[in-house]
Amino acid sequence: MPVTGVVGVTGLVGRTMMEILQERSFPVERFLAFASDASEGRSVRFHGRDYPVQIISPGAISKGTILFGGTSAEIARTWIPGCLAAGAVIIDNSSAFRMDPGVPLVVPEVNGGVLTGREQLIANPNCSTIQLVLALAPLAASREILWVSVATYQSVSGAGTPALQELERQGNGAAPSEGFPRVFGNVVTCIGPPSGDGYCGEETKLMRETSRIMGTDFPIYASTARVPVRIGHTESVTVKFASPFPSAEAVAVLAASPGVVVCTSGIGPVDVEGTDEVFVDRVRNPPDDPNVLQMWVMADNVRKGAALNAVQIAELLLQSPAALPSIF
Amino acid sequence: MPVTGVVGVTGLVGRTMMEILQERSFPVERFLAFASDASEGRSVRFHGRDYPVQIISPGAISKGTILFGGTSAEIARTWIPGCLAAGAVIIDNSSAFRMDPGVPLVVPEVNGGVLTGREQLIANPNCSTIQLVLALAPLAASREILWVSVATYQSVSGAGTPALQELERQGNGAAPSEGFPRVFGNVVTCIGPPSGDGYCGEETKLMRETSRIMGTDFPIYASTARVPVRIGHTESVTVKFASPFPSAEAVAVLAASPGVVVCTSGIGPVDVEGTDEVFVDRVRNPPDDPNVLQMWVMADNVRKGAALNAVQIAELLLQSPAALPSIF
Repeated sequence: MPVTGVVGVTGLVGRTMMEILQERSFPVERFLAFASDASEGRSVRFHGRDYPVQIISPGAISKGTILFGGTSAEIARTWIPGCLAAGAVIIDNSSAFRMDPGVPLVVPEVNGGVLTGREQLIANPNCSTIQLVLALAPLAASREILWVSVATYQSVSGAGTPALQELERQGNGAAPSEGFPRVFGNVVTCIGPPSGDGYCGEETKLMRETSRIMGTDFPIYASTARVPVRIGHTESVTVKFASPFPSAEAVAVLAASPGVVVCTSGIGPVDVEGTDEVFVDRVRNPPDDPNVLQMWVMADNVRKGAALNAVQIAELLLQSPAALPSIF
Repeated sequence: MPVTGVVGVTGLVGRTMMEILQERSFPVERFLAFASDASEGRSVRFHGRDYPVQIISPGAISKGTILFGGTSAEIARTWIPGCLAAGAVIIDNSSAFRMDPGVPLVVPEVNGGVLTGREQLIANPNCSTIQLVLALAPLAASREILWVSVATYQSVSGAGTPALQELERQGNGAAPSEGFPRVFGNVVTCIGPPSGDGYCGEETKLMRETSRIMGTDFPIYASTARVPVRIGHTESVTVKFASPFPSAEAVAVLAASPGVVVCTSGIGPVDVEGTDEVFVDRVRNPPDDPNVLQMWVMADNVRKGAALNAVQIAELLLQSPAALPSIF
């Protein structure tokens, strides 16, 4: 059983990682709780025991320690290199290393097979990417995809606990705090500042990460927005195929896919909060266009979109007989 | 100057029609306020005078009376035939007659030219349609469109005053009332029940009305949702053209279009509340796909999306020398 730690354990994703490790009885020899110095002196409870929160440093790590990274990309770049040198196996939820060709970007149900068991660093994709590829991959296995158009309705929890607190403040009548957009009663149509090409960072992540995980080069037209929802990302997805794909057949394909639940009733993000699956709703062919499918894709962005997917990656490593000897 | 009335004057759209008639100094010889019997005994104020709210009936109408209809489609079907027989000229905001081939469906800046001046009934398009065609029409005049994919983030005011009151109740912690979906803190991914083809009524309206107004047959892939926003509809729009359309050129085309304002800053619906224009934001070409444009399209759905467009239709009729003699 590995020594296992969560870095950023007091944040929303880190806390959820810890919860999911407990829920799923992830085998842990010894638990380590890491956070920034702002959390020094605090402790967290894991399987009924209190663990003091430590500042992450390579000295606290031994070879084979599994670390789940729940910090920002900026912070991830500061602690990951030293911990890798100390022999840790790291599953990082930040965007810092996601496009690094030497670092696999993994959604277990979709491309878990890329793991050789010799990786020391594995990147967890962006929340909006994870749920999209879970819906697209089974369809792509059935028909050639020509393009995908996706518009997101992302919940505020995707920006962490401070953003949730800000949503509540704004809901109580406060003006937006410094550094926060107006999100209560509004749609934030640019997540992160737009870059020179007009795309915001979230859109670029969604487009690039989806292509990388699926190993495809069809164009993805992405438009990302934040809506005043606490938890649960919603995506409107339109897919053009090279040949007709009747919605009834697509529903059957999706219903047989691991981690996917098919609905028909017009669910919303509040209905998926606390769940582990990706929900695909209202799969339909437009009138007179049998090569196109439209659907809604929803998931709990903190769980499957972040913490759960990271834990599933670690479970995949532990379950792989080939992987175990080389890592642990 | 015509005798002018608003039917459904105590509703959100009807009240706004009355406000806009005043704002724009629409020429009114005599004002008539109509509503259902639920509003009997109430009065409304128009240009400083109080008008008792009457129940609509053909007897209250004379030849050439202009009526703005702000009622539901169901109610519209009950009062419009009799008032047409009595000689009224009706601009109806409901969906009742929008797809009737004998009834023009008009957005003045886009297809105002279809009006001959001999129409007695003109349909005002759906809110989400009006803002979409204002953005698409100038682009379509410049390049052939192959398809459009649109996802909407529609405000609660699109469902009228009772829905706004319900949003407030839910925001104060109440469970959804009978007949209302959970919209506070949620995304309602189905506006109206889905029909047999999987599309909800709002999507079907958006697809059919857009084709009818633009006189085009390229496919429109629509996905409509309600978000917890009071006023202002947001649309993520992706357009594929038959040839490259650099975003800088598209911005120039849009900026020169009447009723359109181009932005680059990531505005939200709260920024367009109370305005008369359609705002097109973050126009961009995806990487490696110069034939595609993506953009955000926003408008005040109660004003340009409903009441203002209806008043502009009437202004167009009044301004047309050819039209005037036949109607008034």
